[in-house]
Amino acid sequence: MVYAAKKFINNPNGYSFPYNRNRKLHFLEIEVAVHSTGFGFADVVTEFIEGLVETFPGLQYLDGFPEVKVVLRADVSAEKYDKVAVISGGGSGHEPAHAGYVGEGMLTAAICGDVFASPPVDSILAGIRAVTGPQGCLLIVKNYTGDRLNFGLAAEQAKSEGYKVETVIVGEDCALPPPRGIAGRRGLAGTVLVHKVAGAAAAAGLSLEKVAAEAKCASEMVGTMGVALSVCTLPGQVTSDRLGQEKMELGLGIHGEPGAAVVDVQPVDVVVSHVLQQILSPETNYVPITRGNRVVLMVNGLGGTPLMELMIAAGKAVPKLQLEFGLAVDRVYTGLFMTSLDMAGFSISIMKADQSILDRLDAPTKAPNWPVGTDGNRPPAKIPVPIPPSRSAKSAESQARPKELSQQGRVFEAAIQAAATVIISLKDSLNEWDGKVGDGDCGSTMHRGATAILEDMKHYYPLNDAAETVNEIGASISRAMGGTSGIIYNLLCKAAYAELKANTESEVTPKYCEIMLLECGWYCNGHILVITQASLESSGSKALKSSIASVSKYGGATAGYRTMLDALIPASQVLEEKLSAGEDPICAFILSAEAATKGAESTIQMQAQAGRSSYVSAEMLATVPDPGAIAAAGWYSAAARAVKEQYQGSS
Amino acid sequence: MVYAAKKFINNPNGYSFPYNRNRKLHFLEIEVAVHSTGFGFADVVTEFIEGLVETFPGLQYLDGFPEVKVVLRADVSAEKYDKVAVISGGGSGHEPAHAGYVGEGMLTAAICGDVFASPPVDSILAGIRAVTGPQGCLLIVKNYTGDRLNFGLAAEQAKSEGYKVETVIVGEDCALPPPRGIAGRRGLAGTVLVHKVAGAAAAAGLSLEKVAAEAKCASEMVGTMGVALSVCTLPGQVTSDRLGQEKMELGLGIHGEPGAAVVDVQPVDVVVSHVLQQILSPETNYVPITRGNRVVLMVNGLGGTPLMELMIAAGKAVPKLQLEFGLAVDRVYTGLFMTSLDMAGFSISIMKADQSILDRLDAPTKAPNWPVGTDGNRPPAKIPVPIPPSRSAKSAESQARPKELSQQGRVFEAAIQAAATVIISLKDSLNEWDGKVGDGDCGSTMHRGATAILEDMKHYYPLNDAAETVNEIGASISRAMGGTSGIIYNLLCKAAYAELKANTESEVTPKYCEIMLLECGWYCNGHILVITQASLESSGSKALKSSIASVSKYGGATAGYRTMLDALIPASQVLEEKLSAGEDPICAFILSAEAATKGAESTIQMQAQAGRSSYVSAEMLATVPDPGAIAAAGWYSAAARAVKEQYQGSS
Repeated sequence: MVYAAKKFINNPNGYSFPYNRNRKLHFLEIEVAVHSTGFGFADVVTEFIEGLVETFPGLQYLDGFPEVKVVLRADVSAEKYDKVAVISGGGSGHEPAHAGYVGEGMLTAAICGDVFASPPVDSILAGIRAVTGPQGCLLIVKNYTGDRLNFGLAAEQAKSEGYKVETVIVGEDCALPPPRGIAGRRGLAGTVLVHKVAGAAAAAGLSLEKVAAEAKCASEMVGTMGVALSVCTLPGQVTSDRLGQEKMELGLGIHGEPGAAVVDVQPVDVVVSHVLQQILSPETNYVPITRGNRVVLMVNGLGGTPLMELMIAAGKAVPKLQLEFGLAVDRVYTGLFMTSLDMAGFSISIMKADQSILDRLDAPTKAPNWPVGTDGNRPPAKIPVPIPPSRSAKSAESQARPKELSQQGRVFEAAIQAAATVIISLKDSLNEWDGKVGDGDCGSTMHRGATAILEDMKHYYPLNDAAETVNEIGASISRAMGGTSGIIYNLLCKAAYAELKANTESEVTPKYCEIMLLECGWYCNGHILVITQASLESSGSKALKSSIASVSKYGGATAGYRTMLDALIPASQVLEEKLSAGEDPICAFILSAEAATKGAESTIQMQAQAGRSSYVSAEMLATVPDPGAIAAAGWYSAAARAVKEQYQGSS
Repeated sequence: MVYAAKKFINNPNGYSFPYNRNRKLHFLEIEVAVHSTGFGFADVVTEFIEGLVETFPGLQYLDGFPEVKVVLRADVSAEKYDKVAVISGGGSGHEPAHAGYVGEGMLTAAICGDVFASPPVDSILAGIRAVTGPQGCLLIVKNYTGDRLNFGLAAEQAKSEGYKVETVIVGEDCALPPPRGIAGRRGLAGTVLVHKVAGAAAAAGLSLEKVAAEAKCASEMVGTMGVALSVCTLPGQVTSDRLGQEKMELGLGIHGEPGAAVVDVQPVDVVVSHVLQQILSPETNYVPITRGNRVVLMVNGLGGTPLMELMIAAGKAVPKLQLEFGLAVDRVYTGLFMTSLDMAGFSISIMKADQSILDRLDAPTKAPNWPVGTDGNRPPAKIPVPIPPSRSAKSAESQARPKELSQQGRVFEAAIQAAATVIISLKDSLNEWDGKVGDGDCGSTMHRGATAILEDMKHYYPLNDAAETVNEIGASISRAMGGTSGIIYNLLCKAAYAELKANTESEVTPKYCEIMLLECGWYCNGHILVITQASLESSGSKALKSSIASVSKYGGATAGYRTMLDALIPASQVLEEKLSAGEDPICAFILSAEAATKGAESTIQMQAQAGRSSYVSAEMLATVPDPGAIAAAGWYSAAARAVKEQYQGSS
């Protein structure tokens, strides 16, 4: 068929063979280059089939490569098959058509030609012989001269061998007006709907005559039109030669044939409207669909158009069909059904569908590429966004500074004050270090956060309630810093808040002077944000661990990555160790602060493993410590000292 | 998250936002141009979701556009849901991920960000609240900083609201060596396998802890690597700027991030080998897979690569995994699972799979985009091509000219002789006419056929058996003419042959001098091929009708299309009419020949409706008759005259 394919170049009666050998680095071309087979894409199709049957164990192929390329149901053997076999096929390059529709309830076999070339007669005959039993077979053929003739000849040969054979030709293209001739009505993606109807009818045990009649009826109920907003990736075509910058092409086929019209670029909904009008035009009267009818819609990607865009087109088409054309849209099939390699564009098919056709379309099938989940009850498309749980009355009330601070509240306030003050004083140093390993605004960003905390603490922090105060600190920083820093802050506040809230049943006593160091820096973008907060609650040690775990888990860093965790992890370890050993809590806090400082200083020897610093040279990194770790140690230590002073002062 | 997205351009820690606004005529860009929303792809994603829920009635979305873009199972409501909810999501542009995996047995909800941008925390929270019941929820998060932080913050917030939440982060990229840091291990298509395992575990009624443990285990068993043979259609990239003509890119991500290496172009199997070696490298030890293990394979298209090529890659990968790596490949998933809009390329994922993981992967799901037909018994991939029915001994014997011709045989011979001779004499006229309406070789092509018939008749035609002789005439012309003409010839021979064979039970008598005019021309390419053949069999009239019906059906032409049928259809009609009226068969034959001639001459007034002539101007067409119709009438008339002479001579 290569001969015929070449003859038909640019001939809408037959196949084009527009595969562009100048297009760069395309898989198929590499195959061609490697195999040096010229036009010989035969290997490509046989290798495709090998991959296909590896993927789908329900499929087999006939051992007749390279001439015979037939995919068939593994569970059917001709002698014993007591149903009508449904066979289709055509040129390859249209995957998943046709082999992807082989399976119980759809095609019994698919005959694969070379890329964009009709399969040879002997291949079709082999397929017929392989699956056709006493009930006969139906050939579903797309309306291209090559396919019609080759399938026709095979059908006649098979009849002369005693097989019962019927043929249905599908030419459902609506792009060209009727005077253009029958040759202009190509078989397009709507053929897949005919496959499904026929396959379901055959599976239901109908006779060949009835299966053929249903297929023929289905083929007359469907209309299709293709559209390309870009011919950039149309094989064999260079956009600038064919379309202006502001043009798009309507009514093209599945072999790169030029479209029926080139028009100005329009938004998607205008394009969809045009296509629907063309398919449903009362002038051409191609499909017998009138207001009040029920229809199914198929939006088919031609290969290079993202699924997102196909869904957008489907979303535009449905309300238009309902409101502008007065049709009930009973099913929508959106995806890749009959492609043209990686051609950019899509086609829309509309099929008139009474209940009997819907039943056929909904009937179960094992064909791998028939879409699932397209039927069933249609609930409302959208439901309300759930309302967030309202803050409890207690919480709402607590969002203000208490008139009287408890002892813990006073300690808390002193720790926050000290921590924020240190960060403010570190501004220039942090900026300088960050200038060498990041983008130099670490100190400034943190300064904004610390300033906001000091300001908000005066009025809004419910300092007697550690958990709620942590939450409010998050809000302050989130507002003042924004962006990624705000997210990180929030993340760690939430982790500590959740841990503290989970432990509200445990009595809050000053028994342990533990530390809840909440949010202590971040490697991301080189910004370091440090907030330390001391609490006297018994769950403080767990909250610190929980916060660090969250930083590590969601941030993806751990000890040794040259981040703030290199200060906080040693601090957390020493704190837990000392408390377990029965050490005085305040003393443990101070000792852990020393570990934090030591850890932060050690970052000068570390390679960056995460964050922006990981792109900085080792030489440069060796000149400075990680600003985030230094800031974390600074806050932590300041808070520890403040807590110690408070307790020693008040005791 | 647009802020974060912009910050992360070209930063492998986060999202790139490489959407190329200079690329021509892309759907999404048209949307942008029309809506003038700058970076605001929000409409695109909301419109995608609208199309998605139209397509899949089992899906719903939360009514929170444009901020909240959450797709969820229509059959789940949080209060009553007694299973663990499995939630995933991330930037859009990766369709069918993640919304296409929402359905019973897989995801309970998918949170959609803008294109290539992490979804905001409030959107994730809304999704959690909408589907999470007392059993809690598992968040499956791809390893990108934005996703980790936003999902992490939402998780912590949800916990503080009382929800049970677990998070599993998937970073299964094997492209970069471990020293590059955790940030380099992106979450890629292997995440979809984790979705499936977790979804099946949840559907089986497992607790949150167990579902999370299975998901985490699955995420550690899978490795993925991407490859692009072309970056032509990579958004934001122009190939010539990034890759030389002979280069390809390995290890790229799903947001257009540059690959880990640019190497010389290699054939597909070399590329696949390289990718497999990288994933299974004992040096990186990313996946714990060793010889003798069972694995599953996923070949994922990135959007712009044809399904055919993905299947080819799958077909290459399976034997390599088996033979070179000593692995049992239990399942193969090939298709579009996690794309990057229309990026050209694919990724390969390999997952270690024991029986428990296989059971999860095979478990039923209603998620629309989880592949079907991938499990089940694996029969042999190929089966033998069926052997054509052998010719009967009688038939084989008859493939030679009989030593003695019957009366019918002599008549048959005379008719064939006369018909072929006329065609030979018409050569120059046919060429001349065809030069005006076709490609000018009609006479020459037919001359070759007629010459071959005359030659072969001397030795091979079993002239006493009309059916078999028709078959042999087909073989002669097929051999001598080739191409489309050969197919057409064969087609019509087969049609007549099948009709004649079907009537072998009826006695063959010279009662009717009927005509079996077999193959009489064709419009295609302007070539006209005429073979007439007279037979004395009773089924001749039916055979003529059957042949014409085949020409019309498979060729797509009918009366008035300016083809050879304009000679043959009137002839057939007159023949049937006269025979029904009891006319002498020979007389009927002569009268029908006159009708053929008249019909052929009328083509000069016809517009071409099919074939190459349909592209010729009406003025030109009006100067000549259709050469095919004239040739058909010539053959037919010559045969009729010869038959008449034979019978009149012998009577």
